[in-house]
This record gives sequence, structure tokens and C-alpha cells, in this order.
Amino acid sequence: MHLDEIKQALLESYRTDGGINHLDGANLPSQASVNQLAADLMHLLFPGYFEESGLTERALPAHVTRLLKQIDERLVAEIEKCLRFAQVAHPSAQARARATAFLGQFPALRKLIQTDVTAAYKGDPAARSVEEIIVAYPCVLVISLQRLAHVLYHLGVPLLPRLLTEYAHERTGCDIHPGARLGDHFFIDHATGVVIGETATVGSHVKLYQGVTLGAKSFETDPEGNPIKGVKRHPDIGDHVTIYAHATILGGDTSIGAHSIIGSNVWLMKSIPADSVAIFKGDSVVVRSRRKHETLVGQGSPSATSSADAAGSEWHI
Amino acid sequence: MHLDEIKQALLESYRTDGGINHLDGANLPSQASVNQLAADLMHLLFPGYFEESGLTERALPAHVTRLLKQIDERLVAEIEKCLRFAQVAHPSAQARARATAFLGQFPALRKLIQTDVTAAYKGDPAARSVEEIIVAYPCVLVISLQRLAHVLYHLGVPLLPRLLTEYAHERTGCDIHPGARLGDHFFIDHATGVVIGETATVGSHVKLYQGVTLGAKSFETDPEGNPIKGVKRHPDIGDHVTIYAHATILGGDTSIGAHSIIGSNVWLMKSIPADSVAIFKGDSVVVRSRRKHETLVGQGSPSATSSADAAGSEWHI
Amino acid sequence: MHLDEIKQALLESYRTDGGINHLDGANLPSQASVNQLAADLMHLLFPGYFEESGLTERALPAHVTRLLKQIDERLVAEIEKCLRFAQVAHPSAQARARATAFLGQFPALRKLIQTDVTAAYKGDPAARSVEEIIVAYPCVLVISLQRLAHVLYHLGVPLLPRLLTEYAHERTGCDIHPGARLGDHFFIDHATGVVIGETATVGSHVKLYQGVTLGAKSFETDPEGNPIKGVKRHPDIGDHVTIYAHATILGGDTSIGAHSIIGSNVWLMKSIPADSVAIFKGDSVVVRSRRKHETLVGQGSPSATSSADAAGSEWHI
Repeated sequence: MHLDEIKQALLESYRTDGGINHLDGANLPSQASVNQLAADLMHLLFPGYFEESGLTERALPAHVTRLLKQIDERLVAEIEKCLRFAQVAHPSAQARARATAFLGQFPALRKLIQTDVTAAYKGDPAARSVEEIIVAYPCVLVISLQRLAHVLYHLGVPLLPRLLTEYAHERTGCDIHPGARLGDHFFIDHATGVVIGETATVGSHVKLYQGVTLGAKSFETDPEGNPIKGVKRHPDIGDHVTIYAHATILGGDTSIGAHSIIGSNVWLMKSIPADSVAIFKGDSVVVRSRRKHETLVGQGSPSATSSADAAGSEWHI
Repeated sequence: MHLDEIKQALLESYRTDGGINHLDGANLPSQASVNQLAADLMHLLFPGYFEESGLTERALPAHVTRLLKQIDERLVAEIEKCLRFAQVAHPSAQARARATAFLGQFPALRKLIQTDVTAAYKGDPAARSVEEIIVAYPCVLVISLQRLAHVLYHLGVPLLPRLLTEYAHERTGCDIHPGARLGDHFFIDHATGVVIGETATVGSHVKLYQGVTLGAKSFETDPEGNPIKGVKRHPDIGDHVTIYAHATILGGDTSIGAHSIIGSNVWLMKSIPADSVAIFKGDSVVVRSRRKHETLVGQGSPSATSSADAAGSEWHI
Repeated sequence: MHLDEIKQALLESYRTDGGINHLDGANLPSQASVNQLAADLMHLLFPGYFEESGLTERALPAHVTRLLKQIDERLVAEIEKCLRFAQVAHPSAQARARATAFLGQFPALRKLIQTDVTAAYKGDPAARSVEEIIVAYPCVLVISLQRLAHVLYHLGVPLLPRLLTEYAHERTGCDIHPGARLGDHFFIDHATGVVIGETATVGSHVKLYQGVTLGAKSFETDPEGNPIKGVKRHPDIGDHVTIYAHATILGGDTSIGAHSIIGSNVWLMKSIPADSVAIFKGDSVVVRSRRKHETLVGQGSPSATSSADAAGSEWHI
């Protein structure tokens, strides 16, 4: 088979197997352009932190004028593509209006994001300064971009909000859907592996560790087997809740009461009241010696020798 | 110590501590070149989706001709480096032949990958359109590149398949070995943290959530302590199986029967029959009040107060 | 609202809501510059592996001279920014001295990192060659950069060590704090989701799988509610310990004895002696049929039907 035959076969494949090729349709937002937009938005939120050289108070107005113009042009162009794709009427005027509405919320968003930085500093003994958090903590990127995407989501802009959170997901391993409602003073330590679904709500002063999932249990489908969109299916987390590494909380009816603590690797599909601690029962881990095949420490139930042996027989290391 | 002394010490280190320096050997594939190849291959699979500006039906033949030529040249060059590295006879001719064989499978691969996009749309209520999935869902990148890498793996190309899946791993946090056999309609929601080993097989219509591992239990070593390669050591997943977040399934003898559901954080090293549900036993999580130190909800066993107390005594928050 | 009004509101926001803007202060290290530094340091550690074209023994001295000069200039500049930020006396001279001290340790670091590559080759049956590990295994990047960052951390350089480990975190999903003490022959398979805290220590010949956490249980705060820095709060892992996927080990008093094995998804906050195996108790997972609602396999306790039913009633799939 020669290259020309391969080309003909591919062209035939593009013709017959549609669905994954997008031709002559509305121009989709460009990934490269959205990535530049995301980086620029972080500069607008945190002036002086990500510039190549130092930024002075004096140089700030000219800097902001330039940066804001660049962001505005790109934003309007990408929003317009998204609106055309969704066949919204008057896409140009609508894109202009929604970009302005979005940028108008930046002062309020900065106040909110400042609380997240404070929460990270207070929440991590390893943090030596606020500056270290802003330049080196992945939670700053992922929470800030989600807060921006959330505004666009409520302005009814399709595609773009998800592209912004996916930019952060790619860089941090943390996937927060633009639809999720996040309270102030939100801290996600390490960030990697955290997933927060579209209809989740998170209170104020909540702290998550790596690998936490706020996910769905199941979902309804229509007669064609397509999932019904927009149904509440992710949990509600109260104020001042801490959730340790790899805990999984599932379901739209599940709510975690304020001031509760969820232990590592816990798996919850039921609501718990305020001021609760949810942990694995003490005897769920058994320790036995590799040498004598006997139980050394059965956490919380030191005499659980027989089931430890049964478990031990499954090990072939 | 001056810079020149450091340089001499380094040169001495390169001479005496081999093993991690690669000099005068066969030229290894270039990471930058492989990254460009991966990006180009995604463009070839999904024309019109990732271009900076819109692509028309009319412009398509010229676009494909240009793109295919660029991919072909890079592919032949990188495959040849890999074959020379592995001391395969006739590396130039072999690289040409294997590149053609690989590209010849693209129309069939596009059909297969189209089923994955469909599965993602049907599998996630948060997905608003097929376009959103292709441009913003990490599973599309990671499954598509694994399917391409899998073809190269079976064509006996060393190094390159793994470099392609690692490109996707870096961007998605999802590591699927090129050797894994994946069925059609495969969906991985969120993708981050998922690991699928070399000898795993996955049926049709399988759905995984973030953090799922299809891994090895242990492996045999030769008399020098090096692992014996090529042994079956990862599980088999039947058709229409759903595996929730952070479940871990280990072992080459472990098979999950069709239409089964594996709950979040479950850890399995045994086979289970078709139509099973595997979940943590109801009482494995205990909830107690932070105020009164008494059990509020013992999931599935509400009266498990004593062991909750025992567990509670381990908490110092 | 017009763009000019938005600009004025932003400038006002920068004036009144400080804390997340950094103006007229010491110039912080540039992310782009640190990223280039990280890439260059990997080239210095592994000459011949990441170059665009092959590198010969003959070309090596000139190559190293060039690369070392480039690294040295950038390193001194970035360290000086970090020292000025932390108001260290004589920042220029100190930056020069610490950069030299850091680079002087490269020959010893190369010996150490070589043991990690060996451990990866011996620890993964899927690895076909040492070269494959260096060019395609994320553990090489993340462990190597942590070892370099650890030296800078002990030289008292602020910010930069964390920026280097965050560069690796972004690319691998694995977050190892610069302060962690890692023994030789350290292997992290797949790497994604692994978190190792600042005061953790890891022995020789330790092997971790994806998603493992060596984390903190809790921490003390001062009267203002800020965490007290520098307290030992992460575990100690003995020599020859293997920790499987998604296990979580927490606390500064927790130590895992040598030659122990920790099973997948295990959650430990207590020390265990040498030669232990810690796994979930056999009956912690229950399997029931989706069809008949009866228990098929209760791992380790096949007759636990009643609690399985109780658990089953929570499922709505």
C-alpha cells in the first residue's frame, strides 16, 4: 500500500465515518488560543507573579491596559465561535456582551480567590509564604480557573468553560467541572486526582486532599439510552469540612454536614450530620508477619487471627 | 570549586558511571519529535477539530496530503531509530514497511475510536455535545493514542509505542500500556490516575472512572533477580463492565465477568462471575460525632458502637 | 460597562485587595526560566538521551561546557531572586556560592539516580530496556528532580526547590516535597497520584505504586491559627518496603518496618514492625449478583449474606 492509497482511504473514511470529523461546521474554539487565554487570565488575576521581569506599581496601568485588550479580543473571538457552534442568535453582539459581563466580575473574583490563597497558607505547614503558594501550588491554578469558568458557565457560554477547566486539569490532575459551586476559602492540597462533578456544591472553608472524588452514583437515561442532562447527581459538602486523601463521596442526595471530617479512602453514598467523623472501622486492615504467618496488629481488633489467615492465603508475593 | 572543576568531575562521572548516559549508541527517538508526531496523529484522526482555523470539505484533500506527508516522514525516521536501537536487521526498509502498515490501519482505527466518542457521550450526563467530548475530554487523547501505540506494539516497534502513551499519560494522568487490549466503546471518565497494565484485556462497552487500576499482583524473576518479561499478569475485564473510582483489580488470573459493577475503592484479587456487584461491605465505614464521641451512623450496622470507639481513639485531629 | 471601566475597577482592586498581587517587591523566579532550568538539568544528568540528534563521546566536552554555562547563569540568577525575596544578606555572593555547591554534587547525584533507574528496570516486567525507562518512565523525571531540589532545600534556597518539584508534579501527577529524604534504588511505578510529604523518610530499595500517599494526620497551629512549620508529621518507610496502589500512610509517628508489604487501598495511621504484610481483611468486599440479589463471593467470609443485603439496598444502578 502506498501513501497515496492511504490518503484515498482516509478521505473515504472522513466521508463515510462522520461523527468524529468536524468539517464545514462552525469553527470550534482553538485549543492553542484557549491555552493562551488561560495563561493571560492568570496574569490578570495575579499581576507581578508570573511576569518574566518585575512589575512596578508605576508600570501597572500600561501593563493592565495591554493585557486586558489582548484578553478581551481573544475572549470575544472564542466566545463567538462557541455561540455560533450552539446556534445562538446574534453571536457577535452576544459574544461582546458576555465577554464584558465576565470581565466585569474580575474585581469580585479576585477578592474570592484571595481567600483561597489564605486558606492554602493556613492549611499547609509546608507552605513558607503566600508567594510560594501562588507560584508553586497547583490548587491556585485549578481553583482560580474553575471560578472563572463557572462565571462563563452561568453566562450560558458553551464549550469554553470546559476548555478552561481542562487546561487546569491537564496541568494539575484535578478535574473540577465548571458547573460546580465552590465556597470561599477553598483549599485542595496537592490537587492531583481530585474530581468534582458538575452539580456538586462545596461550602466555605472546605479542605480536600489529593484523590478525593465528589461524584455521581448513577444517572437516568432517556428512551434512546442517552443520559438526561442537568439532573442533580453530585454531593453537597458543608462549611468547614475536611476530606482526606482518596475519599469518595457519591450521589446527589448525599450531603456532608458542616465541620465534619472524612477519613482517607472512605467511600460514602449516604448523608452524615454536622460535626461527624467518618472513618473506616478499626479492624478493616489486618497486619500479619511475612515470616510466621501470624497476626501482629489487627487495628481495633487485635485478635482477628482467623480471618487474617483466610486473607493471608490470597497473597502470593 | 570552580565551574571548570565541576565540568571535569562530570566528564569523569560520564566515563565511570555509565548506564544512565547514552553516548555513541544508536540515536534514540527524540522526545520533541515524538510529541509533534502525537499531536499530528490526533489531527489526522479528527480533521477539523484541532486546527487553528476552520477546515472545509474542499480544502480537505490538500490538507490531508500535507499532513500525511509530514507524519510519514517523521514516523519513518523515528521508527528507524527504534529499530536500530534494538539492532533489528534492515532498519531502513523495515521502518518504511512498518510505517506503511501502521498508517494503512487508520481508516479502521477511526471507526473504532468513533465508538469511544459515542460511549463518552452516552456515558456522561455532563457532556453537552460530541464536539465538547473531542476537544475537551482527556479520554479521547489517551484512548486514541493507546490504540495507535497498540498497532505499533504489535508491529514489533520498540520504544515508540511507549513514548506515545507516555505523551498521553503526561497530559491526562492516565497510563495505559501499549500492550493492553481494549474493546470498542471504551470510556474513561475524568481519566486522571487510571493505570492499565501491559497484559490486561478490556471488553466492549466498558466504563472506568478516575483512579482505577488494572494491575499486577506480583511477578516472577530470573536467577539474577530481573523480572521475566511477557508473562500474563494483569486482569481481564468482560463486556459492559463498569468500574467506579479508585477500584483496584490485580492479577493475571483475575477476570471480571460481563455486565458486572465494581464499587469505588474496592480492591479485588479474585475473579467474579458475570452480572456481579462488588462493593465494600456496608459496615466498613463508621461515623461518629466529633462532639459526643458516639456513633451516629454505622453504615449497614448502626449499632457498631464499640469498634467505632476503638477506632475513634486513633484520631487526633 | 466598558473596557476602560473594567480596567479602573481592576486597578482599584489591585490597590485595595493586596495579598495576591506582587508589585515593587523582589522579583520572583520566573516560571518559564525555572522550566527551562529543569529541562537543562535533566540533560546534564542524562547526556545523550534527550538531545535532538545523537551525542558522541568526542562532542561531549564541548557540549557539557556549553550546557553547564547556560545552567550556571540561569541558576545563579534564579537563586539570587529567591534569596532577595527571603531578604537573605549578600544575595549575589550567596547565590554564586550556593549554585556552585549544588553543581558540585552532580557526580554523586548521578551515582544515586543510576540506582533508581536500575530499580525501575528490575521492578517492572514491562520495561524492555534501561533506555526505555530513561526516555519514557515518569519516575525518572520526578525522582531525579526531587533529588536535585532536595540539595537546594538543604542549601537554604527558598522557592526554587518547590518550583522544580512542581515542574515534575505537573508532568507526572506525582508530588514529592523537596524536603522528603529518599533512599537509593527508589522506584515509583506509573507515578501518577503519588504524594510524599516534606518530613517523610524513605529507605533504600523502596517501591511505590500509583496513588500512594505518605502524608500528615493533622498539625499544630499557633494562636493565630497558622500552622507551625517544621514539625515532623509524615511517616518513615523502612528499607525494601513495597507499597501497592492507593495505599495511604499518615502521621509523623508512623513507621513501616523494613521488608514490609502494604496492600492496595490500605489506610494506615499506626506503625508496623519489620517483615509485615498489611492488607484489608478478607471480608471487607462483598460480591452479590445483580440478578438474584444474593451473595456470590464474600472474600474470606462466604456466608456474610445478611450484611451484603443491607449493603445491596444502598445501590441504585
